[in-house]
Amino acid sequence: MSRTDTGDFIMKSLKKINVNKNTAILLIHCEDQRGIVSKVTEFLDENNGNILHLDQYVDRKEGIFFMRIEWELDNFTIPTEKIGDYFGTLIGQKYNMTWRLFFSTQTPRMALFVSKMSHCLFDILARYQTGEWDVEIPVIVSNHEILKPVADKYGIDFHYIPITKDNKADQEKVQLELLKKYKVDFVVLARYMQVLSDNFINHYPDKIINIHHSFLPAFPGAKPYHSAHERGVKIIGATSHYVTAELDAGPIIEQDVVRISHVDSVNRLIRKGRDLEKIVLSRAVYAHLNHKTLAYKNRTIVFS
Amino acid sequence: MSRTDTGDFIMKSLKKINVNKNTAILLIHCEDQRGIVSKVTEFLDENNGNILHLDQYVDRKEGIFFMRIEWELDNFTIPTEKIGDYFGTLIGQKYNMTWRLFFSTQTPRMALFVSKMSHCLFDILARYQTGEWDVEIPVIVSNHEILKPVADKYGIDFHYIPITKDNKADQEKVQLELLKKYKVDFVVLARYMQVLSDNFINHYPDKIINIHHSFLPAFPGAKPYHSAHERGVKIIGATSHYVTAELDAGPIIEQDVVRISHVDSVNRLIRKGRDLEKIVLSRAVYAHLNHKTLAYKNRTIVFS
Amino acid sequence: MSRTDTGDFIMKSLKKINVNKNTAILLIHCEDQRGIVSKVTEFLDENNGNILHLDQYVDRKEGIFFMRIEWELDNFTIPTEKIGDYFGTLIGQKYNMTWRLFFSTQTPRMALFVSKMSHCLFDILARYQTGEWDVEIPVIVSNHEILKPVADKYGIDFHYIPITKDNKADQEKVQLELLKKYKVDFVVLARYMQVLSDNFINHYPDKIINIHHSFLPAFPGAKPYHSAHERGVKIIGATSHYVTAELDAGPIIEQDVVRISHVDSVNRLIRKGRDLEKIVLSRAVYAHLNHKTLAYKNRTIVFS
Amino acid sequence: MSRTDTGDFIMKSLKKINVNKNTAILLIHCEDQRGIVSKVTEFLDENNGNILHLDQYVDRKEGIFFMRIEWELDNFTIPTEKIGDYFGTLIGQKYNMTWRLFFSTQTPRMALFVSKMSHCLFDILARYQTGEWDVEIPVIVSNHEILKPVADKYGIDFHYIPITKDNKADQEKVQLELLKKYKVDFVVLARYMQVLSDNFINHYPDKIINIHHSFLPAFPGAKPYHSAHERGVKIIGATSHYVTAELDAGPIIEQDVVRISHVDSVNRLIRKGRDLEKIVLSRAVYAHLNHKTLAYKNRTIVFS
Repeated sequence: MSRTDTGDFIMKSLKKINVNKNTAILLIHCEDQRGIVSKVTEFLDENNGNILHLDQYVDRKEGIFFMRIEWELDNFTIPTEKIGDYFGTLIGQKYNMTWRLFFSTQTPRMALFVSKMSHCLFDILARYQTGEWDVEIPVIVSNHEILKPVADKYGIDFHYIPITKDNKADQEKVQLELLKKYKVDFVVLARYMQVLSDNFINHYPDKIINIHHSFLPAFPGAKPYHSAHERGVKIIGATSHYVTAELDAGPIIEQDVVRISHVDSVNRLIRKGRDLEKIVLSRAVYAHLNHKTLAYKNRTIVFS
Repeated sequence: MSRTDTGDFIMKSLKKINVNKNTAILLIHCEDQRGIVSKVTEFLDENNGNILHLDQYVDRKEGIFFMRIEWELDNFTIPTEKIGDYFGTLIGQKYNMTWRLFFSTQTPRMALFVSKMSHCLFDILARYQTGEWDVEIPVIVSNHEILKPVADKYGIDFHYIPITKDNKADQEKVQLELLKKYKVDFVVLARYMQVLSDNFINHYPDKIINIHHSFLPAFPGAKPYHSAHERGVKIIGATSHYVTAELDAGPIIEQDVVRISHVDSVNRLIRKGRDLEKIVLSRAVYAHLNHKTLAYKNRTIVFS
Repeated sequence: MSRTDTGDFIMKSLKKINVNKNTAILLIHCEDQRGIVSKVTEFLDENNGNILHLDQYVDRKEGIFFMRIEWELDNFTIPTEKIGDYFGTLIGQKYNMTWRLFFSTQTPRMALFVSKMSHCLFDILARYQTGEWDVEIPVIVSNHEILKPVADKYGIDFHYIPITKDNKADQEKVQLELLKKYKVDFVVLARYMQVLSDNFINHYPDKIINIHHSFLPAFPGAKPYHSAHERGVKIIGATSHYVTAELDAGPIIEQDVVRISHVDSVNRLIRKGRDLEKIVLSRAVYAHLNHKTLAYKNRTIVFS
Repeated sequence: MSRTDTGDFIMKSLKKINVNKNTAILLIHCEDQRGIVSKVTEFLDENNGNILHLDQYVDRKEGIFFMRIEWELDNFTIPTEKIGDYFGTLIGQKYNMTWRLFFSTQTPRMALFVSKMSHCLFDILARYQTGEWDVEIPVIVSNHEILKPVADKYGIDFHYIPITKDNKADQEKVQLELLKKYKVDFVVLARYMQVLSDNFINHYPDKIINIHHSFLPAFPGAKPYHSAHERGVKIIGATSHYVTAELDAGPIIEQDVVRISHVDSVNRLIRKGRDLEKIVLSRAVYAHLNHKTLAYKNRTIVFS
C-alpha cells in the first residue's frame, strides 16, 4: 500500500496541525555587530513581509550572532526567486553573513539508513504516513535485507547495500549515487550500525543525523547499554547529533534521559532505551525539517 | 502483509529480549498479617520453585499486603494445572487472599479500540509486529472507518462500529460479543473518543486501559491541551489508567510529562503531547501485559 | 551575624557569576504591528546602546507582541534618568506599548512572608547570604513566631503579625505599611499559609509570588499531598505563580515534578515535595528578579 | 546560636515526619540460594518482629541476593544487644551472608568536608537544623577558612586543615584523628575540592559520599561545566557516589539532570548546576542515613 491510501484519510485529521502556509525562512550567522536585527527586520518590513517568528541569539564568548527569521510570502513584494539575490546583496555581504534561505512550500527529501533494528524506522514511518511531518522519504538504504518488507509495506524504494571491510569505499559510492538520484536533501541514520567515511560525510555536512543510544559524551561507541549497566548509572540517555568525522562526537541536536535503578538488567535498559532513541531522533529530525537547527563549531543552536 | 512476514525476521533480532521462559506469576493482596512472605516463599521453595522476582509492599495506612512473585516452572513439583488449587487451598484461603495466577506461556489477547487518531495505534502495532511485546492482537474496533487500512496492512480484523447517542447500548452489545468471540483478555483504548457505559466496563474490571492526554487529575474531559494552554501551565502530561465508571478517574498506571513554554501554541502542545501519549500508554500496557499491575481502591501498585 | 560577615567572603567565590554590569532592561507588550522590532533596536543602535539580550515573542492567537531587551549603558548616549522619557515619547506611545524600564544597578527589595515551614526560607536565605542573588531582603513577616530565630541569625528584621478571622483586615494594613516603610518592590510567600485579601493583592499586582505544593491546576487549596496520595498519581509537582484574587489560579511562572510510586506514603510525598517547592520557588524568584517575567491575561511569558 | 534554639521549635512542625520509632534494619547480601527470604522472615516472625519494610533483589547475572529488612523492636523477643549474635549464628553464617545491623535509635554521626563553595553546605545544614534528617554533625573540616562563620552560626566545630602537595599525607592523618575523636560514622564531601588518598579512603569504605558536578561518567575531573558547554550537550547532570581509589569512579548512589540549551553560558550552567548538586547530594545522604544503600562491585543497590 502506498503512502497515499491511508495517509490521505489520516492527514485530514491532521490538517489542523500542518497548516498550508507559504513562508520563507532565513538562517543566519555572522560576527556580532550593532544593527543587524534592525537591518534584517527593516528589509522584511519595507517589502511587506509579515514576520511570523524571530529568534536570535548572540554567543558573547565567541562574538557570533545567530538568527532564524520566518515571514509570510503572500504580500511580500520581492518575487520568491529573487529573495536570495536581494538579501545577499543588500544585507548578507554587508555584514559578511553566512546564510541559508528555505521556503515552506519546498518539502525536504530524506533518506533513511537502517540495519536490523526497526523501532526508529517504524516511528519515523508512522509520522510520515500520517502526514505528521512535511517530508518526502523516497528511499531506504540498508546493509541488511531484514527490513525490506517494512519498506515495501510503505511503498518506499529499498536498497540493500551490504558493507564489508573490503567493499566499503565502493558501496559508499553506490549510496552517494542513490542519494543524488533520489534528490535527497538529508540523511537520517535510524540505528544504522555502520561508521561512515569522511568522504561520505563531507558530501552532506550537517545533513546526516544519527541517533546514539547513550547520553553522550558518556558511553560512545559500541554497546553503551552494557557499559551503562556495568558503570551502575542511575539514568540512561539517548543523543541525536549531526555526523562528523569523529565517531559520536558531532554537534548534538537533542538528548533525553530516563531514570533507571539497580533492578534494571541490560535487557531492560535496551527496552527502555528504545523508546528514548525513537523520540529523541524524531525530535531532532523535526527540528532539522523545520530549519530550526544551526550547527556552529561542534555545537548546535536549536531555535524554539 | 501478515504479522509473520516481517515479524519473523525482526523477532530474531529481538530474541535476546523476549527470552523463552516458562514461569508462573502470582499477584496477591490481603489484610497484612505476620508470616505471609515466609509462607508463600516456603511453599515455592519446598516444591522446587526457583523464585525469579519477588516484590511486596505493605500499605501501612490501609493495612493491606500486596505481592507479586514469579518463579520458574521447569523443576516445580506441582503440575501447572494444579498450582492454583494447591496454592488456594494451602495458603490463599488461610490468609483470606485475593490472588491471581498467570503463566508466561499464555500470551494475553488484547483488543484495540481507536477512533481517528493513529499515533498510539501505530506505536502499539510496531511493538506487536516486531515481537517487542508478547501479546496477540486479534481485533481492532473503531467508531470510524479511517484507520481500517492500517489494520489491513497488519492483517488484523477491523470492525467498524459507529456510535450515536441512540445506538450506543446496542453497539456496545456488538462490541462485547466481538470481545468474547475473539477471546480477548483486555482492552486498550488507543485514543478511542467514546465514553464506555458502566455495563461495558463491568465486563472488564481493571482490564480496560485508557490514555488521557493530560496530567490527571488536571484537565479531565475534552480538549485538555486547549485547557492547558488557556491555564498557562509550564508542563503538560499524559495519563494511562484503568477505566472505571467515573470519567478519567480510574486507577492511574503511568504518567509522564514534558516541559513547555509560552511559545507553545495549542497545536504545538498537541504535537508534543502525541509522543507523550503513545509512550505513556505503551508503558502502561507493557506493565499490564507482564502482570505487574494491581489495582486497589482506585490506586495501582505497579511492581518494578 | 549580619549578611556581610560570611557573605563578603563567600561572594568572592561568586564574583564570576554576578558580574558587575551596568545595563538597562525594557519589558514591552503591545498589539502586534509591523516594524516594532526594527524601531526598538534602531533606537538603541542609534544611541550607541550595545544590545546584550533580545527576546521577543508574538502570541498569534491574541495578536500581542512581547519583548525583553537588555543593553549596556556604558556608552549609551541618552542619560539614564531620561531613557524612560525618550523611549516613551519616541516609541512607546507611537505603538501604544505597555512598557517597564529596569536598571541592573537598582537592586530589587523583597519581603518574605512565612508561617512555620522553613525549607523555602532557608533556601532563599542561603542564596541571599552568599550573594547568589542580587536582591535585598529587608524584612520577614510571619503569622507565627517560630521562625524569628532564623531571621535574627541572618540579621533581617522580623515582624510577627498573627492573623485571625477577625483581625485580618487590620493586620493586612499593618503589613502594607511595613512593605511601604521597607520600600519593598515585591513579596515572596515562602509557604505562607494565609490567603491574602483582594485589597492586599491589588497593591502588588504581579508582584506577589507564591509557591503551591502541587502541580496546578491539580490539587489547589489545602493538603495537596494528601489529595495526590488519595488519587494515586505517579508524579507530584510544585507550582510558583503570581498571586491573584482567585486562590491558586494566578499566572504560573514555574513548575516542576518528581516521579513517585505506590510505596510513597503521604509523609514521603511531603518530604520529596519540600525539595521541589524550594527549587521551583527559587527559580521563579530568580526569573522575576532578573525581569524575565511578563504576566499577561493569566499567563506568563518567561524569557530565557 | 546552637542547633537547639530554632531547631526545637521547627522540629515540632516536623514531628509528623520523623516519627519516633524503635526499629532494627538488616542489610544483607550473599550468593543467591533457595529459601533465604523465607528463612529470614521466619526468624523475625517467630520472634515477634513486625516487618515494616522488606526489599530484596537478585542480580541474576552475578547470582547475588540483596536484602533490606526493617522490623519493629517493641515486642521483639530477642534483646537488642543480642540480635546480631543470634542472626549471625542462626542464619548469617549458614548462608555465608555479608550483613550489617542498624538500629533506628542510633543517630548516625556525619562529618562535612568543604572548600569554598557553600550551596551544598547550606542545604545540608538547613535539613540538619530543622530536624528534617536524623543525623548528628559534630564537625566540619575545610582546606579553607572562608566557611568558618557558617559553621559558627550553626554551633558546629570547624577545623581548618589546609592542604598542599607536600603536607597532604600529614594533614590526612590529622583529619583521620579528628574523625575518630568525633566518633564519625561517615563523611560527606560537600564540594570538597581535594582528592583523598587511598589510605584515607580505606578507613571509610563506602562511607565517604561525594558530589560530582556532572552526569558521570561524562566529564569526570575538573571543570565539568566548562567541558559540558564546550561539548554542546543539551542536558547537564550531577552525580553523588561513594568515593573509591579511582577518581569520580566509585559506586553511584544518585544522579539527576536538568535540560539546558544553546543560550546557557558556562556561568548559567554553574548556576543551574548548583541546585542539581545540592539536591542530588542530599538525596544520596538521605538514602545512606536510612541504611537504604548497599554498594557491591562498583554499583549500588538503593532500596526504595
